[in-house]
Amino acid sequence: MDADPLSVTFAALSDPTRRAILARLALGEATVTELAAPFDMSLPGISKHLKVLQRAGLIEQGRQAQWRPCRLQAAPLRNVADWVGQYRRHWEQSFERLDAYLRDLQDRQDQGKGHDDDSDTNRPG
Amino acid sequence: MDADPLSVTFAALSDPTRRAILARLALGEATVTELAAPFDMSLPGISKHLKVLQRAGLIEQGRQAQWRPCRLQAAPLRNVADWVGQYRRHWEQSFERLDAYLRDLQDRQDQGKGHDDDSDTNRPG
Repeated sequence: MDADPLSVTFAALSDPTRRAILARLALGEATVTELAAPFDMSLPGISKHLKVLQRAGLIEQGRQAQWRPCRLQAAPLRNVADWVGQYRRHWEQSFERLDAYLRDLQDRQDQGKGHDDDSDTNRPG
Repeated sequence: MDADPLSVTFAALSDPTRRAILARLALGEATVTELAAPFDMSLPGISKHLKVLQRAGLIEQGRQAQWRPCRLQAAPLRNVADWVGQYRRHWEQSFERLDAYLRDLQDRQDQGKGHDDDSDTNRPG
């Protein structure tokens, strides 16, 4: 499985524990033990998540220091923001589209009252 | 696996074919046959991807029409943008941090020239 970088990033982010680890590291670097503390999880369990994040380039782990602190690497998140930003107008326009649809519906009803050919909605009760 | 909505969204986005389907639907609604055309993929293969996107609420498929057109649903993408936006300062500040680090390095060197105690970097060759 030679996945593209963006797919690897999205896969790494598809787990709440991994996203919580990133949120913790956003506050500053932390050791594996410190990262494991808030979770009801074994150190090997956390290490597995850290490896996924590391492979995705979302964290970096010190090699020299004995306590090997983890650090957030935000560059792949910028790529996620760039990708999702392409769709911004789609979620921003959804209210505008709803508004336009309702106006269009109103216009059709108004026109129907004037010169309709196959409408039977205006028949009296 | 009762995954949280954001995890389901990220998992759905972790595939280049599924992201390409969303890019196509950003241009307007399309049938399954139209969506399958640009990919070297069987209709069942595409349908599988569409089901993942549908479960994530990223697309909607018409139920009434015989050709069942697919439509982009951008709301979950707004949640992705909101989530990743929390990390914006981290990738925006990386250049600033590098700049600050280099200035700090320069300052230390300048100070070292004035009143150092254990530096031996200023010894003449």
